[in-house]
Amino acid sequence: MALDGLLTPVPGGVTAAAGFLAGVACCSIKPENLKKPDLALLCSEVPAVAAAVFTTNKIKAAPVKVSAAHLRTADLRAVVLNSGNANACTGLEGIEHAKRMARAVGWNVGLRERQVLVCSTGRIGVPLPIERIEEGVARAAAVLAPGNGKAAARAIMTSDTFPKEHAVRGGTADGRAYTLGGMAKGAGMINPNMATMLCVLTTDAPLEKKDLQRALSVAVEQSFNRITVDGDMSTNDTVILLANGRSGGQPLSPSSRDFEGFQAALNHVTRNLARMIVEDGEGVSRFVEVHVSGAATFQDARKAAEAVANSSLVKCAWHGGDPNWGRIVDAVGYSGAAVREEMIDVYYNGLIAVKAGIGSKTPPSKLAEVVRERKFTVHVHLGLGSAEYAVYTTDLTPEYVRLNKGE
Amino acid sequence: MALDGLLTPVPGGVTAAAGFLAGVACCSIKPENLKKPDLALLCSEVPAVAAAVFTTNKIKAAPVKVSAAHLRTADLRAVVLNSGNANACTGLEGIEHAKRMARAVGWNVGLRERQVLVCSTGRIGVPLPIERIEEGVARAAAVLAPGNGKAAARAIMTSDTFPKEHAVRGGTADGRAYTLGGMAKGAGMINPNMATMLCVLTTDAPLEKKDLQRALSVAVEQSFNRITVDGDMSTNDTVILLANGRSGGQPLSPSSRDFEGFQAALNHVTRNLARMIVEDGEGVSRFVEVHVSGAATFQDARKAAEAVANSSLVKCAWHGGDPNWGRIVDAVGYSGAAVREEMIDVYYNGLIAVKAGIGSKTPPSKLAEVVRERKFTVHVHLGLGSAEYAVYTTDLTPEYVRLNKGE
Repeated sequence: MALDGLLTPVPGGVTAAAGFLAGVACCSIKPENLKKPDLALLCSEVPAVAAAVFTTNKIKAAPVKVSAAHLRTADLRAVVLNSGNANACTGLEGIEHAKRMARAVGWNVGLRERQVLVCSTGRIGVPLPIERIEEGVARAAAVLAPGNGKAAARAIMTSDTFPKEHAVRGGTADGRAYTLGGMAKGAGMINPNMATMLCVLTTDAPLEKKDLQRALSVAVEQSFNRITVDGDMSTNDTVILLANGRSGGQPLSPSSRDFEGFQAALNHVTRNLARMIVEDGEGVSRFVEVHVSGAATFQDARKAAEAVANSSLVKCAWHGGDPNWGRIVDAVGYSGAAVREEMIDVYYNGLIAVKAGIGSKTPPSKLAEVVRERKFTVHVHLGLGSAEYAVYTTDLTPEYVRLNKGE
Repeated sequence: MALDGLLTPVPGGVTAAAGFLAGVACCSIKPENLKKPDLALLCSEVPAVAAAVFTTNKIKAAPVKVSAAHLRTADLRAVVLNSGNANACTGLEGIEHAKRMARAVGWNVGLRERQVLVCSTGRIGVPLPIERIEEGVARAAAVLAPGNGKAAARAIMTSDTFPKEHAVRGGTADGRAYTLGGMAKGAGMINPNMATMLCVLTTDAPLEKKDLQRALSVAVEQSFNRITVDGDMSTNDTVILLANGRSGGQPLSPSSRDFEGFQAALNHVTRNLARMIVEDGEGVSRFVEVHVSGAATFQDARKAAEAVANSSLVKCAWHGGDPNWGRIVDAVGYSGAAVREEMIDVYYNGLIAVKAGIGSKTPPSKLAEVVRERKFTVHVHLGLGSAEYAVYTTDLTPEYVRLNKGE
């Protein structure tokens, strides 16, 4: 049984599952990049089905538009990704470039353009160096191999400081093992409802396309949609999941325990990748879980948690190791959630900071000890109901400002 | 006639209008503050009417609750303000402290508690040193004088770097001159729908209480509600306007040209004070007007302008002198406003950066010149309608983080 706690971590990342190959190439997409691979190609050797979740930003990058159109293809088995240029706000030329990326993959690995998804990440508003990318696709296709998962995870990094990959092995009730793995990139522009984050997941478990999409939507909701670094949501956010059924057996039935096990594995992998993205937030020195409970409604819990997690003042205080709970209560107050001041309790790692809306007797030095740790939890109990929500976030640092003040 | 362009600036700030007196005292509200006055008292010598606008944060500081209750009093003629402690999240004791501040003013100047409004600003969650404040009220009452407007503006400063005051003289059609002036404090936690900002305005023009409230609400909407430094809205925001009619004549009739003139004067003074608050934002190095036009609705224009003005990534780019228009288009895209990418134009000080959703031919170096200036305008035209909105904001600097990372 593949319940969450019983999953076995395995190496290999996005190529851990059987039948998936990756290749990378350096296209010097940023002219000053002469050596680092900035293009990754991922393919299934056998027919596969795909699911995807895209940014909800109304301004969508060209690769998002092209991938959304291609997603309907029944046998969808390749993804090409570049870093260094977002191909966003590039007009009709940008659309043509994204299609040319897909077409180049098709030529080189024997697929149609519509069997390929495209992802880009980087600066907005700069035309892609499409000829160099087309040449890069050919080189990446020439080196496709099952062992290149980590190289692909490195190729999609922008300001990330480490490659993000995770894979697990699960199993079905009839004893078949399957593998699920993935890679992601994040860093800046991270916010609930997706971020400048790209994530590609692969599995050799057998699933039907419509069930795969449902499982992915559920997984994204409890992982990537619950992380925030700076409250900015990008034009390029994409999470893709390919399933090629190479582990054998019949498609997992959506109401079965096997499907539940697969969902648990998918939740586990996406949650791990999401945490890695927050931990690698630009210039970050704190990793904070903001947990709101006792809300009247789920939406209230979410609003309150997101207001705290995105408050510049709260995040600055964390950076300074200051348990400034007044700023937390303030953010809860303007979040739009139903709140009653005298019902609010706030805890840092279980130490009570606010009791019934006013400061507790916990010595500030004790609270400061928690906030000086690299990881801690802020728990806000609203005392009005039973809804809860958690979001993962970071502090705000001078380093974040320096990293984002220009190229 | 007192039309906006014809107003005469006069000195005196919050005591420029006839019949208003101010006094200040040092109460060492922050124990380390031994000399700087941190309490201001303002009184009208004659009966006055008052209007006020308070924070929309659901967590309201004790002085906000007490002042909101006192606001119904017909003859309301004093305001007491302290800096260094917000008296927020202080429970029933906080309410009692705010009432004791009003009562202390009453004892010392011969008013009832309910004729006094109370404002506090500073750290949340710390009990007021109420005995020291009561003694301070007595000392401030002893030095009440018409020339103390600037001293009062200084006493309410927290992390402000300069006192904020402005006053103008206007006139009625029958030749009577009146004066309108005010003081404000701001700095951190500044956001539309009020901020940790306090503002007290006074006028010797004759107005009825209900008309005064309407005029103030209009003025706040086009001034303090249009500024943002960090998107955080405080528990203490308050704008108060007292009118004592000392300039003589009948109350200005709400449909008269005289009333229009008064509204223009009030808009002018509040807009000036609001701009001073943004210019004095914590650690700020840029002062930016974000102007959205061509929106389908007023709410769309507002959402788009506020998303741009509160985007950490946009603000970091400005700090670095980087005309990163992609981040502006991105923020417009996630703002919730109706947008169509191919209709969007973006200008920096009139130089076109984005034309029909893609980068213009303006050399980036020309745009960078604008963004290196201390003040500039970003104009986003959505091309979908005729609604517009403007908001005043700042960049995000490492200095902001340092100033807010702890006491």
